[in-house]
Amino acid sequence: MKVNGTLMRSIWPIGDRAVGVIDQSVLPHRFETRELGTAAAVEDAIRTMVVRGAPLIGVSGAYGLALALRADASDNALAAAYARLLAARPTAVNLRWALDRLRTLVTTLPPARRAAAAWTEAGRVAEEDVQLNRSIGGHGAALMRTLHARGGRPINVLTHCNAGWLAAVDHGTALSAVYAAHDEGIPLHVWVDETRPRNQGLLTAWELAAHGVPHTLVVDNAGGHLMQRGQVDLIVVGADRVSAGGDVANKIGTYLKALAARDNGVPFYAAVPSPTIDWTLGDSLQSIPIEERAAEEVLVVSGLDVAGSPASVRLMPEGTAVANPAFDVTPARLVTGIITERGAAEPGRLVELFPELRHAA
Amino acid sequence: MKVNGTLMRSIWPIGDRAVGVIDQSVLPHRFETRELGTAAAVEDAIRTMVVRGAPLIGVSGAYGLALALRADASDNALAAAYARLLAARPTAVNLRWALDRLRTLVTTLPPARRAAAAWTEAGRVAEEDVQLNRSIGGHGAALMRTLHARGGRPINVLTHCNAGWLAAVDHGTALSAVYAAHDEGIPLHVWVDETRPRNQGLLTAWELAAHGVPHTLVVDNAGGHLMQRGQVDLIVVGADRVSAGGDVANKIGTYLKALAARDNGVPFYAAVPSPTIDWTLGDSLQSIPIEERAAEEVLVVSGLDVAGSPASVRLMPEGTAVANPAFDVTPARLVTGIITERGAAEPGRLVELFPELRHAA
Repeated sequence: MKVNGTLMRSIWPIGDRAVGVIDQSVLPHRFETRELGTAAAVEDAIRTMVVRGAPLIGVSGAYGLALALRADASDNALAAAYARLLAARPTAVNLRWALDRLRTLVTTLPPARRAAAAWTEAGRVAEEDVQLNRSIGGHGAALMRTLHARGGRPINVLTHCNAGWLAAVDHGTALSAVYAAHDEGIPLHVWVDETRPRNQGLLTAWELAAHGVPHTLVVDNAGGHLMQRGQVDLIVVGADRVSAGGDVANKIGTYLKALAARDNGVPFYAAVPSPTIDWTLGDSLQSIPIEERAAEEVLVVSGLDVAGSPASVRLMPEGTAVANPAFDVTPARLVTGIITERGAAEPGRLVELFPELRHAA
Repeated sequence: MKVNGTLMRSIWPIGDRAVGVIDQSVLPHRFETRELGTAAAVEDAIRTMVVRGAPLIGVSGAYGLALALRADASDNALAAAYARLLAARPTAVNLRWALDRLRTLVTTLPPARRAAAAWTEAGRVAEEDVQLNRSIGGHGAALMRTLHARGGRPINVLTHCNAGWLAAVDHGTALSAVYAAHDEGIPLHVWVDETRPRNQGLLTAWELAAHGVPHTLVVDNAGGHLMQRGQVDLIVVGADRVSAGGDVANKIGTYLKALAARDNGVPFYAAVPSPTIDWTLGDSLQSIPIEERAAEEVLVVSGLDVAGSPASVRLMPEGTAVANPAFDVTPARLVTGIITERGAAEPGRLVELFPELRHAA
């Protein structure tokens, strides 16, 4: 997607000796890129959230492993680099998946050919993610085209959290639909939930501004009122996990927006690449454990101080009792459809898009 | 209510020459009281939000007018003080109401008797507010007693914004019910919505901590999930306005909690003194204009910096497009009941509690 007119991805190869990334730890306040030339630099970038978002972390890890093999392609070095990169974000499923994929590939090769093969494969991992998300965008844009044709006026989309290209390699998931529609010329405007406690909506607002998509930032409390007043035509969010039955686990607060959507006749979609669908979960997503994150995320807010330097403020004293559930589950009954790389389906018919996976459940 | 064991009100007379107030502009970080000995000091306290909350502003204004008359009880001085105090917060209905009440009273008196009469009347305005809220608390506690008797375990109450004693003279509205139930020995715990953008939930958390009521702070996004998991037994909020039909205009985000309450079978109550009920509004509250407040409220967050000094951080650059509707309307169909000083009623039967007001509509 564009950053002030220039097409960019969140990660890109620089020759075959380094990767470039956008330093997401200083967004939305400053736009800076970094060159990562070693596995240790990649590991550090993952750990310090210079790179974030499941797909991007996976691709970063893949490039990191390739860089490690460039320095030392022995079995021992491979094992050590794999372990260190994985430890940079042990809960990231995509990271493990990407590292496994590269390790499996290079293990069959003599050490002299490993680095080049790994580098090529990391590029493939990135490209596949781009293609998945581009397809999601196309299907999402088709929905928006229909909505626009019906209403004849600019359509208002509401989104929660950041399901944009910063979290992926390009396009994003929910925002892929927005970008595709915008680039096609469908007039639209996006309501951006700030998404407390971590305020990922600020990244969404930054992305949209950089690409030139009209948008307005709102607090998480505002969306219901906007829907009551007819100012939202469509909700599109990403998801951390979708059950085979169409329950959507996503950032905390998503469920409240889905309720308001239903109450006001606003279509509610989740946009996900198929690997996000957990075919082993039927209707049981309601009972999955929800990660409880640190109280400090709620109690401390980051931004810029009056001098324009990064700073944070504490809202309440340490020791204040805080609960901080990170995700909630929107039941399928509130979901209009799931948008995947193969098209959109009602939650109950999701499996029809992936007949070959039917037996995986 | 108590502040660490000591019974306090948000405003109190000091002899007949000054009033004491809690400096709410430095809460929840510091507890400081101030002595206001002149009308100008009261005016300044209203303007700088040392005092806040509709009932408290009204009582403060009344004492301010009495202090002005102490200095000069002439008709000219009365008119000037009235105008200056009213201008400190021109949109505050309670302020105008209290100032009118005092002005009407003293205008009939010779100047020599005005100051003393105004001082006594200001005390009456305060006492009437306390009595209204105490009655609301008693009726709310009765509901909690019933809930507790049914479940036999501590009850979990969720509240939004600050409808506590800091905004009134004592007790508060929604929190009056909590305090009354807690003081009666009903075991309870309160989920406190942070209430972006102005974070009035922090005042609620401070109040509850100071009085010794168990509570947990959460972001506004969390409540739906808590209800899905059965962790909320009751929602009680205050209101800025309630229609005769039981629609509830309250802080932005209230409607989302009411939707989740309905979806999960959680009772949803608004607690208000009867002057908050607008008998002229039947079912038309949905169409009232909603105040759009400054973007800076969303873009700038206040707290303490690492050194413990008051500070603020900017979340996004100036010029970021922001919408900041201050209130939303929860339709009566989502409201279990309205708790007033005369008891609780289903929204459709609210008028039965106030038969003498029936014709006001």
